[in-house]
Amino acid sequence: MDRVGDVSVAERREGAPEFDDEFRQRLYDLLRWRRDVRRFKRAPLSAGTIDRLIGIACLSPSVGLSEPWRFVIVEDEARRALIRQCFEECNKDALEMQTPDRAALYARLKLAGLDDAPCQLAVFSDRSTAQGAGLGRLTMPETLDYSVVNAVHTLWLAARAEGIGLGWVSILDPASMHEILDVPRDWRFIGYFCLGYPQTEDDTPELERFGWAERQPAAAMIRR
Amino acid sequence: MDRVGDVSVAERREGAPEFDDEFRQRLYDLLRWRRDVRRFKRAPLSAGTIDRLIGIACLSPSVGLSEPWRFVIVEDEARRALIRQCFEECNKDALEMQTPDRAALYARLKLAGLDDAPCQLAVFSDRSTAQGAGLGRLTMPETLDYSVVNAVHTLWLAARAEGIGLGWVSILDPASMHEILDVPRDWRFIGYFCLGYPQTEDDTPELERFGWAERQPAAAMIRR
Repeated sequence: MDRVGDVSVAERREGAPEFDDEFRQRLYDLLRWRRDVRRFKRAPLSAGTIDRLIGIACLSPSVGLSEPWRFVIVEDEARRALIRQCFEECNKDALEMQTPDRAALYARLKLAGLDDAPCQLAVFSDRSTAQGAGLGRLTMPETLDYSVVNAVHTLWLAARAEGIGLGWVSILDPASMHEILDVPRDWRFIGYFCLGYPQTEDDTPELERFGWAERQPAAAMIRR
Repeated sequence: MDRVGDVSVAERREGAPEFDDEFRQRLYDLLRWRRDVRRFKRAPLSAGTIDRLIGIACLSPSVGLSEPWRFVIVEDEARRALIRQCFEECNKDALEMQTPDRAALYARLKLAGLDDAPCQLAVFSDRSTAQGAGLGRLTMPETLDYSVVNAVHTLWLAARAEGIGLGWVSILDPASMHEILDVPRDWRFIGYFCLGYPQTEDDTPELERFGWAERQPAAAMIRR
């Protein structure tokens, strides 16, 4: 098996890309300028864009090659309205959890691009998928959900590389999302995503610019 | 607020990068050639590499700017041995769950680079972090864990862009990982990661090459 592996790899290796400093600097630019976008222009994405981005997202790693990602493109106005309503209810609860000064700031932050984003996407994790025959997920079935998050992150970066912004809406009730979108019970709701051209570009998160929180130095996150 | 926002953004926009077709093609190459690496050369990473990669990972999105990612670099041989033992026990259980033909294939797959990978990293999600003041995670606290997964995925891509491979080990018992690494109770175990220079490069997942599972077309993952 190893021998076969080595031979096939030796062949494949010739086509393997080498990444240079210039590419890496551009990659870091992409990571630095990727933002969680809340304010969108209303201009639609061109036809086929979201399908193409999902195709790129499917290059992502998944536990045991299970590919549990399920994408629901939400175009129906009635369903979008129900999702907006769900967000408003959850957001109200969240507001009440904050201290008064925080609540005032919170209210000013535009937490959803639900009104303007031309493309909206609900993403689920198929917890019952047979693909991959359960490999690697016996002790940690949540790795299925993590695989879906990988795909979302890939989609996010691929979108930003085309100048398209994405906003992750997490102030939603998963059970309501199931009802509104009528998806299988075994699907776990991962998040709701707004896509479109951003009104603005920035290399600093909006929450940091508005004084909600500051990013910490990476060294603070490391133990040995 | 909007006016301030617009002004500051107009200034910032000038420095905003534009990504061209050439960059995007290289980005897709990176996504296509990123692999879950199991077979490593023993050559160590150069000094400072893992800290630098973690620094890049910290550019990732997190819910409410909570940055809940916690990285534990595991260098101690005794702890590495305990983690290896934990893997072997969990792997044995997993093997018993497979049908005989699957089990034979499963046994042949090298599921861990634990013996050879020069750099090993446990990653946790700090579920109790005050950073971000709870924003965006009231209805879905698991978005903290998803934020950590974003960081892992960023680290994975940044590593591959330097020719460094990463393997995600999920066949582990989270409770044991807590004990072995002596981390706070509120930290949730996300995964254990092996890093090093890969023995081989490929654009096809090892599980696909070995007939464990086949990747499905993206169109199969989309609903409207």
